[in-house]
Amino acid sequence: MSEHHTHAPLADLTDEALAGLLADQRAAYEEVAVRGLSLDVTRGKPSTAQLDLSDALLTLPTSTRDRSGTDVRNYGGLQGLPELREIFAELLGVDLAQLIAGNNSSLTMMRDCLVDLLLFGGVDSPRPWKDEERVTFVCPVPGYDRHFALLEELGIDMVTVPMTEHGPDVDAVRALVADDPSVKGMWLVPTYANPTGRTTSQEVAAELTAMVTAAPDFKIFWDNAYALHHLAETQTKTADVLSLASAAGNPHRAILFASTSKITYAGAGVAFLASSQEQVAWYLAHLGKGSIGPDKVNHLRHAEFFGDADGVRAHMRAHAEIIAPKFAAVDEVLSRRLGGQEIATWNTPEGGYFVNLDIVPGTASRVVALAKEVGLALTPAGASFPYGEDPRDENIRLAPTMPPLEEVREAMDVVATCVLLATAEKLTEERATR
Amino acid sequence: MSEHHTHAPLADLTDEALAGLLADQRAAYEEVAVRGLSLDVTRGKPSTAQLDLSDALLTLPTSTRDRSGTDVRNYGGLQGLPELREIFAELLGVDLAQLIAGNNSSLTMMRDCLVDLLLFGGVDSPRPWKDEERVTFVCPVPGYDRHFALLEELGIDMVTVPMTEHGPDVDAVRALVADDPSVKGMWLVPTYANPTGRTTSQEVAAELTAMVTAAPDFKIFWDNAYALHHLAETQTKTADVLSLASAAGNPHRAILFASTSKITYAGAGVAFLASSQEQVAWYLAHLGKGSIGPDKVNHLRHAEFFGDADGVRAHMRAHAEIIAPKFAAVDEVLSRRLGGQEIATWNTPEGGYFVNLDIVPGTASRVVALAKEVGLALTPAGASFPYGEDPRDENIRLAPTMPPLEEVREAMDVVATCVLLATAEKLTEERATR
Repeated sequence: MSEHHTHAPLADLTDEALAGLLADQRAAYEEVAVRGLSLDVTRGKPSTAQLDLSDALLTLPTSTRDRSGTDVRNYGGLQGLPELREIFAELLGVDLAQLIAGNNSSLTMMRDCLVDLLLFGGVDSPRPWKDEERVTFVCPVPGYDRHFALLEELGIDMVTVPMTEHGPDVDAVRALVADDPSVKGMWLVPTYANPTGRTTSQEVAAELTAMVTAAPDFKIFWDNAYALHHLAETQTKTADVLSLASAAGNPHRAILFASTSKITYAGAGVAFLASSQEQVAWYLAHLGKGSIGPDKVNHLRHAEFFGDADGVRAHMRAHAEIIAPKFAAVDEVLSRRLGGQEIATWNTPEGGYFVNLDIVPGTASRVVALAKEVGLALTPAGASFPYGEDPRDENIRLAPTMPPLEEVREAMDVVATCVLLATAEKLTEERATR
Repeated sequence: MSEHHTHAPLADLTDEALAGLLADQRAAYEEVAVRGLSLDVTRGKPSTAQLDLSDALLTLPTSTRDRSGTDVRNYGGLQGLPELREIFAELLGVDLAQLIAGNNSSLTMMRDCLVDLLLFGGVDSPRPWKDEERVTFVCPVPGYDRHFALLEELGIDMVTVPMTEHGPDVDAVRALVADDPSVKGMWLVPTYANPTGRTTSQEVAAELTAMVTAAPDFKIFWDNAYALHHLAETQTKTADVLSLASAAGNPHRAILFASTSKITYAGAGVAFLASSQEQVAWYLAHLGKGSIGPDKVNHLRHAEFFGDADGVRAHMRAHAEIIAPKFAAVDEVLSRRLGGQEIATWNTPEGGYFVNLDIVPGTASRVVALAKEVGLALTPAGASFPYGEDPRDENIRLAPTMPPLEEVREAMDVVATCVLLATAEKLTEERATR
């Protein structure tokens, strides 16, 4: 397929060249349409090959007792199996006493925290959040759609701040939290953020943990979902948020979440929560009313599988070997088809599960609709914003881990065609009404 | 050890005979004290031998795909694995579409329901329960301490009704719910109740599901924890509460809970929730904000382990073989030591996990304290009542499943000694102050 443009800014095209581009992309699109594709890059799910890496779990544990002799099959052990917590305390850089191992979902632990804050208030709350006139969370955007959906369900308002290269825009956060006591917390995916791939720097983390907040019980929901999910040799180090918060005199400000969902099995892993010991006790006190303990057999299964923290590190390198080529393919196809035309920017993440694609404002919804029409499922436009509303309609989240490499290539080619077509359509329309 | 009394009513003893009894029991108690026992009959936990019955789980599942070809290791499947739900739909007598399979704790599902009712209201609620001036639950007593602790945490008031031989006293329930719209629900363990061992009859279930309630969104939390946990050959059948409720025109009144915690592994089983399809959808809608699905690997592990409903039934017979002798030992020791003296009544359950011991009013706390002193842990007196307060201080819950048979015998002998001593003390004191 020839492309009329020469990877020069699309806006500089003559009317004639633009008409040629539009015709070409329409033809390319029609060609895709007849292929009857069924591709999906919507969700950050591990691929079959990645899941296979953990299949030794299927015949573990070999023992039914933990190292203290406790039978893991029976009730109890609300904080989780010590030997598994030890491995992840090292990896997450927290004290053993600060860490809880739960069931299979860190999202559940986040919802539990929010529910408990609403119904009872936290260790430093003047009253239950439900008794506040209004509760607001700061949401760096683009961000994780499930974070926003959770707040929406619970009636918590959302205000946005931009993600910069080094994490959320601290000045914007500070302006929101300094005087308004209704601003009770913020989301943050500190490492290889969903979907921007950006990592919050030590400096930004230090400022967020130390900043003055009007609310005495301001919480940073530090969702370190991709803490260990490096794609490159250089492994980004996450800021030690609990120590920073403690040093700044705000020991209860941060609650850290993590899980093995994208380390072992997405649906059958182990989730973790870490915070100040007082806040951990607060969480466990409420958890204990509705649980007699997590699935400790699964904890022991994981502890035996990994052996130690190095076992986890080695396992993550095996993941990277499978998915790094997929991320490279995304960059390769997008660069070839969309590069140099000033119509699209995307990141080349060093970790995590997503590529963040920003295109010409006003075209993202059109691209997602075009793609859907020809059998490519993309995350709905706006999904990475509160209430699903991208104010500029320019952001698309790409999740390349699940499909096989060849399908990732094909999907990205379709994305590029749809982006070029939507952009050419828009430019043509703009010139017509000029 | 000789006993002075001859299993005649203790109250009929002469002063001299009572003094002899008191001296004897003090001597018996001192004898126990020097043994340095460490016995525990506090919680309804399965024994090691019971847990061993399920150890084939440790090398299951053999497949990673369910029968529809879905990879159970990945995210998704919020309602749970169909093949496992099918087995338990048959056993619990509900439609497949009405049944959810969750993670390892039905208590968590109960708390989830209460939290969602508080924060959002149910499918038939005029408003979220948190916006009601007051929310009250009817609690049959004696009942399950964790049920009561959960309500207490959530600020839900409790009023009690007696358990009769055929379930909760329906007239008492009716009187509470008929005119007071703050009475929003009730607890009920319908089969082999904790701790009375009593089963709610079809008739009582029909009345509870059909009765007029002032609250339009009255819920029966039907905790069928011991649905399949028969001790005898005659297997008590649980009332079909969902059909009864539906037939009575109150399809959303009952929410059924169950689990494999006392079928496979107490800490690593699968919990179930069943209700009207509309209420199931309501539950899943909220669950889905904080979960991307339950541990389906554990679901498949269980489905492979059982094979079908008959597999579960056969498995339950193996449990009964282990624990029925322990229940027989409780009855044997208590009958021998406490029978015929009109100072104690206890049940001989046909299923479940508990023996309910009622003794002379005003002595239960003393018995628990005496037992503790000599190394026997009993459930705290009053535990089976809201706020831990037994108004008559007469109720003790015995849980004989966990210790080995010989320890159960020894523990019951200590219980009998403590009961006799406390009763003799009390009677002596009463006569002295008469």
